[in-house]
Amino acid sequence: MKTQPKILITNDDGIYAPGIFALWEAMDALGDVVIVAPDTEKSAVGHAITISDPIRIQEITRRDGFKGYAVKGTPADCVKIAVQGILDSPPDIVISGVNAGANVGNNIIYSGTVSAATEGTMLKIPSIAISLDAVRGGNYEPAKTVAQRVVHQVLDRGLPEGVLLNVNVPNIPITDIQGIKITKQGNIFFKDWFEGREDPRGHQYYWMTGKIVDPDSDENCDGVALSQGYVSITPIHYQLTCESFLEPLEQWTFDE
Amino acid sequence: MKTQPKILITNDDGIYAPGIFALWEAMDALGDVVIVAPDTEKSAVGHAITISDPIRIQEITRRDGFKGYAVKGTPADCVKIAVQGILDSPPDIVISGVNAGANVGNNIIYSGTVSAATEGTMLKIPSIAISLDAVRGGNYEPAKTVAQRVVHQVLDRGLPEGVLLNVNVPNIPITDIQGIKITKQGNIFFKDWFEGREDPRGHQYYWMTGKIVDPDSDENCDGVALSQGYVSITPIHYQLTCESFLEPLEQWTFDE
Repeated sequence: MKTQPKILITNDDGIYAPGIFALWEAMDALGDVVIVAPDTEKSAVGHAITISDPIRIQEITRRDGFKGYAVKGTPADCVKIAVQGILDSPPDIVISGVNAGANVGNNIIYSGTVSAATEGTMLKIPSIAISLDAVRGGNYEPAKTVAQRVVHQVLDRGLPEGVLLNVNVPNIPITDIQGIKITKQGNIFFKDWFEGREDPRGHQYYWMTGKIVDPDSDENCDGVALSQGYVSITPIHYQLTCESFLEPLEQWTFDE
Repeated sequence: MKTQPKILITNDDGIYAPGIFALWEAMDALGDVVIVAPDTEKSAVGHAITISDPIRIQEITRRDGFKGYAVKGTPADCVKIAVQGILDSPPDIVISGVNAGANVGNNIIYSGTVSAATEGTMLKIPSIAISLDAVRGGNYEPAKTVAQRVVHQVLDRGLPEGVLLNVNVPNIPITDIQGIKITKQGNIFFKDWFEGREDPRGHQYYWMTGKIVDPDSDENCDGVALSQGYVSITPIHYQLTCESFLEPLEQWTFDE
């Protein structure tokens, strides 16, 4: 009898978010699921890890059968402590999401969802990040199907060392989805500004706010494919060296 | 008369750290300095930004002439709010550091120092991260000289859009430094584990701890060059697409 794959689920919206519940439902059909996720929302924490504060873990069980470990920490912390503290042996796969909101273009730099999957990759476990293109009120059903298909392939084929998949799903009915497109990280960015307010004690404070700007037109870019109704899958890595600038930089002198 | 360059300084160790003071001393000789840095230590926050909490700013002035804006936020927040809120016009350069501890190999993913410079780059400002290879008790004098020389070159030549420089300085006397080496991001990583303890109320908590592991031998890797007494400069970018895996991934089918 074939043993069930062990699937580690995490996210950055927190263990009580609808997206992780949907992912649990989808993965429960495929293997033995362990959920280790932040106890509260950790959106936009990037690849933060907690080294200056103690980390606490609380086991939670809900009536509907959903159970997991709520971690007072970041998404990257969750993957580390799951693999190095909670589980007896490493999972076969890490899947992070389903995030409420797309993670495409420049914005993947800020994404806790993507960072959790990156952490899994750094621990040499095939890893996937999955996001739905709806910050609120999204329909997670199509993303569940997509998650199952992508996980199925990754369990079958594996991933090269150091490479993870960043999956984004349009928020449309599954029958309207145009297909799956292999994409590149595009240049969508969040043009942000700061809104100043005064608290009741007369002290100034600021909220970061802004809007999405998409300068891309190439349909092989993640955000463009998504907006055209495709599921976008971008293979990403954490090799940040800009190879093309090594040679010019060698010509610089630093004598004064 | 040539106008002085406007230099924005930030860091992740916080505005009261010795490294930012050293950097202020070094940059004050080169131009008009503005310091906008986290009010407390924000090591290992990666590219976190603060979107769910208000951000506060406090102006500080010290007797020795050091003055700046202490931000209740992350290093990336500091760069954003400096450029989009505090300054009338964008700085000519952003320099982040001097970090207490090297930022090389895999560890640059977690680095608030590097992320601040990345944020500057995303805002289309030439940006530099600089770190000293000593977590405590380091001698910042050589790093000051290195910072001046690198800033001088970057102000002169500029940087390609989307590329920043990650500079690491060995903690040795400047006369012992072997020179400057243009390097690639290597594979040094922090092999971490969790140390469980019990608080006075009988509740379990964990500290993330670990040790540095360096699997690299190629002397063009950042960590190796640094350990050999070179200043290491790696050009990095935030294009995370793994180009070499696009073609193989195109062959996958996601039918079931």
